[in-house]
Amino acid sequence: MGAISRENDYYILVNVFTVAPENQDRIYDAIVDATEIIERFPGFVSANIHRSHDGMRVVNYAQWRSLEDFEAMRRHPSVQDHFKACRAITGDIVPIFCEVVYVHEPTSGDRALGGDRGTDDRES
Amino acid sequence: MGAISRENDYYILVNVFTVAPENQDRIYDAIVDATEIIERFPGFVSANIHRSHDGMRVVNYAQWRSLEDFEAMRRHPSVQDHFKACRAITGDIVPIFCEVVYVHEPTSGDRALGGDRGTDDRES
Repeated sequence: MGAISRENDYYILVNVFTVAPENQDRIYDAIVDATEIIERFPGFVSANIHRSHDGMRVVNYAQWRSLEDFEAMRRHPSVQDHFKACRAITGDIVPIFCEVVYVHEPTSGDRALGGDRGTDDRES
Repeated sequence: MGAISRENDYYILVNVFTVAPENQDRIYDAIVDATEIIERFPGFVSANIHRSHDGMRVVNYAQWRSLEDFEAMRRHPSVQDHFKACRAITGDIVPIFCEVVYVHEPTSGDRALGGDRGTDDRES
């Protein structure tokens, strides 16, 4: 579950919510409440919610089937109040839309420094 | 590979590198170069490097066995030049040290809104 891989071709959003430490629980709860609605939308793959140890951030690493699925959810009336609740705690929500380009694990094989870049698949 | 899970109890670092779009390739290459050294240290589990579609960010989602393993790597002389190369492109590197608290996928079962929070395991 929650596998990060280049193969599955998911659309990735990384959302970093910055708060005062006394608000970490509030933003965490608001994101979980929102996720319980969002996960019902077509194209939702996973939400992986993290709390920072310094209490100042909550990070959501989310996977969608496509940008179109995500945008359809974001426009839907049923989620607007949840986004509003999050914004009231943390300000504007600015997701980083990105793609996995490199997954590196020691088990992926021996490699000489400066040699084969392994799982790198950039088009350039 | 690259599984996000509460069960494995990894120490998570999320690093968001912000750059001008013309420098996205440079910071990406510098992070990959650094990772090829870093992956040799005890306790390294995975690095998962993402490029943002707007060209302005590279996000590394990294998993370590423990904070102690990560800190031992960070202090080691062999990595200092690589960190310096990254900082020269992007400024100070400020990882978000965090833990997975909630993994949500549609396959994890039906749940009524406001009911069982499923995989949430907060201590509070």
